[in-house]
Amino acid sequence: MPSLRKYLPILDWGRTYNRSAFSNDLIAAVIVTIMLIPQSLAYALLAGLPPEAGIYASIAPIILYAIFGTSRALAVGPVAVVSLLTASAVGQVAQQGTAGYAVAALTLAFLSGGFLLLMGVFRLGFLANFLSHPVIAGFITASGILIATSQLKHILGVSAQGHTLPEMLSSILEHLNEVNWITVVIGVLATAFLFWVRKNLKPTLLGLGVPPLLADILTKAGPVAAVVATTVTVWGFGLADQGVKIVGAVPQSLPPLTMPGLSPDLLGALLVPAILISIIGFVESVSVAQTLAAKKRQRIDPDQELIGLGAANIGAAFTGGYPVTGGFARSVVNFDAGAETPAAGIFTALGLAVAAVALTPLVYYLPNATLAATIIVAVLSLVDLLILQKTWAYSRADFIAVAATILLTLTLGVEIGVASGVATSVLLHLYKTSRPHVAEVGLVPGSQHFRNIDRHEVETDPALVTLRVDESLYFVNARFLEDLIQRRVTEGCAIRNVVLMFSAVNEVDYSALESLEAVNHRLKDMGVGLHLSEVKGPVMDKLKRSHFVDDLNGRVFLSQFDAWQALTKPEAAANAAE
Amino acid sequence: MPSLRKYLPILDWGRTYNRSAFSNDLIAAVIVTIMLIPQSLAYALLAGLPPEAGIYASIAPIILYAIFGTSRALAVGPVAVVSLLTASAVGQVAQQGTAGYAVAALTLAFLSGGFLLLMGVFRLGFLANFLSHPVIAGFITASGILIATSQLKHILGVSAQGHTLPEMLSSILEHLNEVNWITVVIGVLATAFLFWVRKNLKPTLLGLGVPPLLADILTKAGPVAAVVATTVTVWGFGLADQGVKIVGAVPQSLPPLTMPGLSPDLLGALLVPAILISIIGFVESVSVAQTLAAKKRQRIDPDQELIGLGAANIGAAFTGGYPVTGGFARSVVNFDAGAETPAAGIFTALGLAVAAVALTPLVYYLPNATLAATIIVAVLSLVDLLILQKTWAYSRADFIAVAATILLTLTLGVEIGVASGVATSVLLHLYKTSRPHVAEVGLVPGSQHFRNIDRHEVETDPALVTLRVDESLYFVNARFLEDLIQRRVTEGCAIRNVVLMFSAVNEVDYSALESLEAVNHRLKDMGVGLHLSEVKGPVMDKLKRSHFVDDLNGRVFLSQFDAWQALTKPEAAANAAE
Repeated sequence: MPSLRKYLPILDWGRTYNRSAFSNDLIAAVIVTIMLIPQSLAYALLAGLPPEAGIYASIAPIILYAIFGTSRALAVGPVAVVSLLTASAVGQVAQQGTAGYAVAALTLAFLSGGFLLLMGVFRLGFLANFLSHPVIAGFITASGILIATSQLKHILGVSAQGHTLPEMLSSILEHLNEVNWITVVIGVLATAFLFWVRKNLKPTLLGLGVPPLLADILTKAGPVAAVVATTVTVWGFGLADQGVKIVGAVPQSLPPLTMPGLSPDLLGALLVPAILISIIGFVESVSVAQTLAAKKRQRIDPDQELIGLGAANIGAAFTGGYPVTGGFARSVVNFDAGAETPAAGIFTALGLAVAAVALTPLVYYLPNATLAATIIVAVLSLVDLLILQKTWAYSRADFIAVAATILLTLTLGVEIGVASGVATSVLLHLYKTSRPHVAEVGLVPGSQHFRNIDRHEVETDPALVTLRVDESLYFVNARFLEDLIQRRVTEGCAIRNVVLMFSAVNEVDYSALESLEAVNHRLKDMGVGLHLSEVKGPVMDKLKRSHFVDDLNGRVFLSQFDAWQALTKPEAAANAAE
Repeated sequence: MPSLRKYLPILDWGRTYNRSAFSNDLIAAVIVTIMLIPQSLAYALLAGLPPEAGIYASIAPIILYAIFGTSRALAVGPVAVVSLLTASAVGQVAQQGTAGYAVAALTLAFLSGGFLLLMGVFRLGFLANFLSHPVIAGFITASGILIATSQLKHILGVSAQGHTLPEMLSSILEHLNEVNWITVVIGVLATAFLFWVRKNLKPTLLGLGVPPLLADILTKAGPVAAVVATTVTVWGFGLADQGVKIVGAVPQSLPPLTMPGLSPDLLGALLVPAILISIIGFVESVSVAQTLAAKKRQRIDPDQELIGLGAANIGAAFTGGYPVTGGFARSVVNFDAGAETPAAGIFTALGLAVAAVALTPLVYYLPNATLAATIIVAVLSLVDLLILQKTWAYSRADFIAVAATILLTLTLGVEIGVASGVATSVLLHLYKTSRPHVAEVGLVPGSQHFRNIDRHEVETDPALVTLRVDESLYFVNARFLEDLIQRRVTEGCAIRNVVLMFSAVNEVDYSALESLEAVNHRLKDMGVGLHLSEVKGPVMDKLKRSHFVDDLNGRVFLSQFDAWQALTKPEAAANAAE
């Protein structure tokens, strides 16, 4: 059943599942579970949801992705950027902390899942390509900065608002008098500890002779150590009574069955953010999955990935979660820990289910500042301001796209930021192709080759202008060519013939066809012939479907040399006779 | 002073002005003036303004364009499409018939003029190219239908509302009980007469031996005859008392000095429509001007045209007019009547000034139905549904753009229609280039040429894959190539080397660079070499600014044949030894 297996990749890897794969998957699952417990709580906090939502969002979605997804190592669940987008979108329709807020988050996951499934069914994965790399890089960097800033209030123990950098900073400044210094000490120590763990723990352990796998598990468990230490401290010294904000009661339960809100108003208000979240989540997920698959010479199918991620989000919508996607950090950890199949994800989900039932009372005294520290340390690795320098060195247009995306995301919010980024990169592309390279060419003496007259010593004929067009012709550059020919022909009165050399023209759209027709009519009015040479087959087929070739005030030559011979012969003969 | 002449083209043609040009210009001006009097009144009615606004909008703007514009024959003034756009934009901020409505129309002209001047100063004329020909054609056709429909109420003598086709039609149906049958008779007769004049009068007169110039003037005067006949009828039979709506009192005056409204609210509300009107007006005007200039082997400067049209609109804003542009019909009439210089425009302006002062009392009894008939006959020539058939035959993408623009303009209004049209054509272009043609090539035996393995008998090597990329690489197609290489390489286990043949790649943007880097890393992980061949100079210069070439897990070959020799040599030698 190859077609069923295409839509249910689990049938593929499940048939050959064996003990070796099982033990590798199990080890990977233990490591990822340890890493995910504090991370899930933290990202739920970032999304403005109760902490258990983060754990619930990691259970059903992982299992559904394991069934429908094509990547062997991708770990699906709440991620930083999508959590930020969720907070921004849901914050616009409901007040944080209300039941409506949680329901709106379910709706967002439901819409996002539905949109991903639709894109998958219609095989529209390519749409994600309209997000250029500079836009994604700029957006991720700006999101990292926004997320880290949004966590400052938890480190300081103040209540602050805002979805943009200026809003957040000014809100924090306003509430600076509320700073809780015990919270600050916990938050700063936790942040410093986590940075140290990330940078130095593994080398230190390896230096002490600890086996690599254990060193790895211990390093991944760093956040757990911070959680345990700060929780015990807050509990032991009764710091919650000193104003240190804590996670508090988390229900001890498996993921509940939930129903997303489906009122037309809510659906309408969340549709655009859901599309945005879907596309950004998809792009992040696919690039991680492709990178990991390539390392084992495996392939992922981007359209089937849409279905996997769509199913995961639908799952999140009905089990108390919120929008999820394939996360970078957790997938790399999963892969490095030796996960061989999506079964590792299923074991992770089981581990998290156990945690949801058994461990949630233990995090009652966990300070929010510790979770904020976890987030800050995680997202600062997303911030890559070097992209500005790299794109500046490589191409100004790409630099403008990155800079605009970063600036607008920070100052006007994530949705406007990414939308303007896409618009900027599309406009810059159109601008670049609106002025195609057009070279006037002449014959290289003693050959049949034609080269740019500005760069080579070539033969020309004052009565003949040959223009080689180095770009496909379409509406954005159609008029450019029209103007250019007009300018060139009005310059020299001796011009009798114009040849357009189409060797690099892969496409002539209807606008360009009409421009060519206009050029043809104008040149006819001036008594100048218009000819084409080296037209590619598909382009010629298309031109023949119009009247252009019939109306052409000149000929279509197979090769430019034929055109040269036919259009200069009389004069060449005359010259030879002199 | 060549630079001053560049910005004041009048200094150019003014220096050589002579008696022959004078008499030609004067004759053209008389014909255009006769044509413009009823047309100006009618277009003002279409824009929802008092009739005199149409005449005022034809005086100062023409003179200003004559000073700053570069076309010798373009006739500037109110045109049908811009009048419709004005009615749609101003109708959103003010009630028709109020003083606020007229002031908002002045503001629209002011904003439009300012925007055109800015575009001209920054030489942004190329932005107009983002409107593809199918979008323009679809928009003009839909506008023609909308305009003709909007005039039905005047022919029927009912009061109806609406800016979209369904709105207009349902509003007319609602008011059908108010139909004034005398108005219907006048309207239908006037429409039939004007159609007859347009189609048959000139041939009939020529057949009767009337000299061509006179036949032309008489044909152009057709609308004047309809105006005179219906005015006299209404006056003689006292039909205004029978419910026939008439133009009524029109002030007898030169264009007044007026001040556009400059409140931030008004400016904000009209900014987007003003930009739209500017771009559409500019596109219409430039294409007319270019067509006419080409007939005399003259050139127009699109950026200076922006300044000319900008000045004309600023002029309209301060002299009781509304947005103007170069009109198709009047410019062709002007050209055909022999206008040699913009002085013809100045004479036309003087003729209209005389009309404004002396003739306005004569149109008191002119029925609105006659003006509506003038508009209907004029705009139906804009309706070109054949464009649907032509684009269908030529290219599905262009057909979709036309059809979407027509449909959305008719049903959702002019602004949404044209905006969706632009979005559609940009998206279709991105879609088309998102799947570039990539051919796998092999060596033509006994030559150094490489051709598509699917179309030619060529030598290949199972360990070497050579892909020729027939499109510039940029963000929209970057991932496509990434996937394609991934798919191709995971297909065959024997593959040791991949060569990308870049002969048709004119650009590699940062997204494509990152994709190439990702491909390079993945192939390296698989133990497969990645090589480039035939990279163009500018592309290579750019690639060298990144680390890509240094990190490349392979080489850059000058020619594909070099690559072939280097990468197949060992096996070729081995084969030879067998």
